[in-house]
Amino acid sequence: MKFVDLLDRSIKGNNSQLCVGLDIDLEKIPKTIASGKNAIFDFNRSIIEATADLVCAYKPNIAFYERYGIVGIEALLKTIELIHNFKLPVILDAKRGDIGNSSDAYAQAAFQYFKADAITVNPYMGKDSVDPFIEYEDKGIFILCLTSNPGAANLQNKPPHPLFLTVAEKVKEWNVRGNCGVVVGATKPDELKQVHDIVGDMPILIPGVGAQGGDLEAAVKNGGRRAIINASRSIIYAADPKAEAKKLRDAINQCK
Amino acid sequence: MKFVDLLDRSIKGNNSQLCVGLDIDLEKIPKTIASGKNAIFDFNRSIIEATADLVCAYKPNIAFYERYGIVGIEALLKTIELIHNFKLPVILDAKRGDIGNSSDAYAQAAFQYFKADAITVNPYMGKDSVDPFIEYEDKGIFILCLTSNPGAANLQNKPPHPLFLTVAEKVKEWNVRGNCGVVVGATKPDELKQVHDIVGDMPILIPGVGAQGGDLEAAVKNGGRRAIINASRSIIYAADPKAEAKKLRDAINQCK
Repeated sequence: MKFVDLLDRSIKGNNSQLCVGLDIDLEKIPKTIASGKNAIFDFNRSIIEATADLVCAYKPNIAFYERYGIVGIEALLKTIELIHNFKLPVILDAKRGDIGNSSDAYAQAAFQYFKADAITVNPYMGKDSVDPFIEYEDKGIFILCLTSNPGAANLQNKPPHPLFLTVAEKVKEWNVRGNCGVVVGATKPDELKQVHDIVGDMPILIPGVGAQGGDLEAAVKNGGRRAIINASRSIIYAADPKAEAKKLRDAINQCK
Repeated sequence: MKFVDLLDRSIKGNNSQLCVGLDIDLEKIPKTIASGKNAIFDFNRSIIEATADLVCAYKPNIAFYERYGIVGIEALLKTIELIHNFKLPVILDAKRGDIGNSSDAYAQAAFQYFKADAITVNPYMGKDSVDPFIEYEDKGIFILCLTSNPGAANLQNKPPHPLFLTVAEKVKEWNVRGNCGVVVGATKPDELKQVHDIVGDMPILIPGVGAQGGDLEAAVKNGGRRAIINASRSIIYAADPKAEAKKLRDAINQCK
């Protein structure tokens, strides 16, 4: 099944454009779980079982797993398997990108080893660094366009023709297999509209509404029908993650 | 010991500005090694033992280890340990970069878990995505500036003020701890000179002279005294890696 069909199915099935980011931090999870042998996976399982009927996707950021070395990698593998048991898509937030043969190895890691359904990719190195991911026709490739952090101002967003617009135009051009998407932060709603106008119905992964304080209503309105609103820390470390996920899922729906 | 001192020591000690890229590919290594239980590490060991007196650093690209999952990660850990036994620096080619807390996790993975001495970082997300690496004062941070691949033309190298020059200027500004470097492909010798003029004595990691066909003489002349000339496939998959490394080390020295 193509990623975009998986995504459309979960958006419809769960009536949700919420993506939950699984950014594991052993210092933030409940002590009863953190002391166990499989702490990372057990924590993720508690989040996934509580929210699987409220989300359109999960987004583990691989940085938080690599930090724990092999233990983290094992937990990520099991987490992805569990999400697939719920028939939901996994967006591996990895922000990879390298010369062709290296990107090819990264794509093998993400899609064949971890079995992710989609990945985030950094466009800095250009077309031949992105192509090895795009060649996986059934996978989703989310290319960083305008990120949610302050540093986005350094390179991505400078007049007169900001880099993020060039990236959006390139992604439209690179999307020959219909499997591309973009990443635009919720902290930049006007620019999100500009990107949406360029990329049309592509999925747009929109982080930054939770801990980073982006504008939810503008993000939903400007992101279109395949906007994927991501929240990580604000949900998984909430006192009641299920209630928090439901609240945000419903808030997204009310903005439409 | 600071990375730059480690580097200066090995440049002087081995009279070498050659870096060997350990881009493992089980399909390309000798069958006698590939069939063994620790094939990846055994292959790397054969390369390292043959070339440790000829190089200033080794550069494993983590993509090629991630592709093999946990087996690859274990081999990478052992490889880095072995390189350190030879008192040589390890540049982990990872091209990471994310919002602050995620980059912080990547830095922990690279420097605390893998114990790399330096890392390559992607600048697309700006200062706060690079800072968590730079905070490790004793580590080297090589920021992608102008890469060696064709796709570099898509975003990095467009007139009138190409992005790679902005990046070089930013790196100079970000280098408050004196631990930054840049990556510039040998395929772009004139631009390498421009970057060197901006960043001065910073280490410049220069890939692209081997399989990618960059101009060695111009790279050495324009890269300065901390130019690190990297070759990967052209050495490690040569019939005689030691002879090939010696040939390139000597050729680099003759270009000076």
